[in-house]
Amino acid sequence: MKKILLSHGGGGKAMASLIKELIAKKFSNKILNELTDSAILSSTGDNRLCFTTDSYVVNPLFFPGGDIGKLAVNGTVNDLSVMGAKPLYLSCSFIIEEGFDWETLDKVTASMAEAARKAGIKIVTGDTKVVGRGSADQLFINTAGIGILNEGINISTSNIQIGDKIIINGPIGEHGLAVMSKREGFETDIRSDCAPLWDLVSEILPEGGIKFMRDPTRGGLSSVLCEITERRDYGIKILEEDIPIHDNVSGFCEILGFDPLVVANEGKVLLVVSPETASSVLKRMKKHPLGREASIIGEITKENEGLVVLETVIGGLRILDRLVGDQLPRIC
Amino acid sequence: MKKILLSHGGGGKAMASLIKELIAKKFSNKILNELTDSAILSSTGDNRLCFTTDSYVVNPLFFPGGDIGKLAVNGTVNDLSVMGAKPLYLSCSFIIEEGFDWETLDKVTASMAEAARKAGIKIVTGDTKVVGRGSADQLFINTAGIGILNEGINISTSNIQIGDKIIINGPIGEHGLAVMSKREGFETDIRSDCAPLWDLVSEILPEGGIKFMRDPTRGGLSSVLCEITERRDYGIKILEEDIPIHDNVSGFCEILGFDPLVVANEGKVLLVVSPETASSVLKRMKKHPLGREASIIGEITKENEGLVVLETVIGGLRILDRLVGDQLPRIC
Repeated sequence: MKKILLSHGGGGKAMASLIKELIAKKFSNKILNELTDSAILSSTGDNRLCFTTDSYVVNPLFFPGGDIGKLAVNGTVNDLSVMGAKPLYLSCSFIIEEGFDWETLDKVTASMAEAARKAGIKIVTGDTKVVGRGSADQLFINTAGIGILNEGINISTSNIQIGDKIIINGPIGEHGLAVMSKREGFETDIRSDCAPLWDLVSEILPEGGIKFMRDPTRGGLSSVLCEITERRDYGIKILEEDIPIHDNVSGFCEILGFDPLVVANEGKVLLVVSPETASSVLKRMKKHPLGREASIIGEITKENEGLVVLETVIGGLRILDRLVGDQLPRIC
Repeated sequence: MKKILLSHGGGGKAMASLIKELIAKKFSNKILNELTDSAILSSTGDNRLCFTTDSYVVNPLFFPGGDIGKLAVNGTVNDLSVMGAKPLYLSCSFIIEEGFDWETLDKVTASMAEAARKAGIKIVTGDTKVVGRGSADQLFINTAGIGILNEGINISTSNIQIGDKIIINGPIGEHGLAVMSKREGFETDIRSDCAPLWDLVSEILPEGGIKFMRDPTRGGLSSVLCEITERRDYGIKILEEDIPIHDNVSGFCEILGFDPLVVANEGKVLLVVSPETASSVLKRMKKHPLGREASIIGEITKENEGLVVLETVIGGLRILDRLVGDQLPRIC
């Protein structure tokens, strides 16, 4: 009998097949079929709303730079932000293992409250379930978020054209490695980049020409790039030397054999921007605390239809592929 | 160190204290502070929207009359319906234990799709996480729902007045006992009442005079009644003989020492209705498949401030109290 594997939750090909085979067909409707991280709702009145959800199962619950509570707020805030939607409301639902420390839950909810305040979102409804000891691993949190799309905002892969520039707001790979290091007991100074992106996004949207945004979480930068070109008549070329990455991350990846391009980020946004506004968008980003190390890392090309090609620092070419499963389970 | 117990998820006093001490204060805002099952949103445009969430951890996943998928759709549909909001959109998020059967997940998602179709709600966004074997018990599902409140609809305990009638749409106790019987291997013919309530609610709303509605799930009928009178200057009197309950449920409860008043329902709505429209509301309910056994079971009284008093079939009086913990964990 076919079983669900860890890889089915990894944000790669296996997860895509699970969603396609077990979920998308049955639930099919015009809104869901877009398969974006957030749904754009149409029957809710004059304003277009964005709706998204994520469950957080990160292990350990606390890691350098964050915790499950901060992550559960920012992760959902970011799914709305990359659609260009101002995050307004959050639901939160706890599944708690019997015997979990009251005090630890207190810390987690305090962290959620602080993250919500910083992100300017209100937690307005919730739910609490407790399951017997051994029936869950400590604490899982689900958040669902609602955001509002201002008029004229249209973030979609369908806007993308040849010549568009690819921008990322800062160094990659930090969240996944911070969580993994903590879990495995490695000593590193890597901290999660977990942060709410709306403030940055709202500052750059007025520059115009922003075609598409996505937060490279599970599956990392590589997965988002591959999704963009999948079944399209254009390719992407990325210059490895332009991808911001800190030495501690690249060094750690080299030692352990990880590819930083598929490691999860939680405070990063990848943008596809028109060549006309790319430099003004970049300039604006660099003024924001979350965009100081922003960089144009590549562009949409006529060549290599449907593919993502990485030009390595030594001048070689490498075709990026979506991860099949997951290098690092339970990082969000 | 203080620990989270199963009782903290039981829908009773312990859960109320957890929410009050660990969650409500920190997340405090005008919308959340209402502490209704669904939040009424104000900044989403001309229409008032309702927003709610629930995680479902029912064990076993399949039980007479339903399964976790059907429950995850109807439970959230009902939380919107009892606010008077037409359910529009649902998110769904799966936490799956590694090794879970692909085929079983297929059955669950098929059941969700069917339930969504029947309830007239669209599943528009979702998330999938897989955790290692032993880190979750098979499958947990979270759904969050958005509904729209038509103009003039105002369902709130603040509308309640002395003399208002209490109505329930049908027999109580079936869901909790169906799940528990299946889990423990008891042979009964009790089936869960799991059903979407919007169709019934939308038919009775035009009758007018509907002050308050609530679905008596965890904690049962008793908990909802106690919540209504808590810190109020009125009481509730209920006539036991008018509470619809099937013989198999009352017999089973008697044998096992359960109180059917605190057993969960998943297709029931308790209403507080003005005395002027109570009989027309009841008449209309009885024409609906989910309201055939509807009954006026009591009323709001000037006496017994803050209390719920049950007049038993033999004429005795019993004060109902909110459950502290939970008789039956993991029934939803």
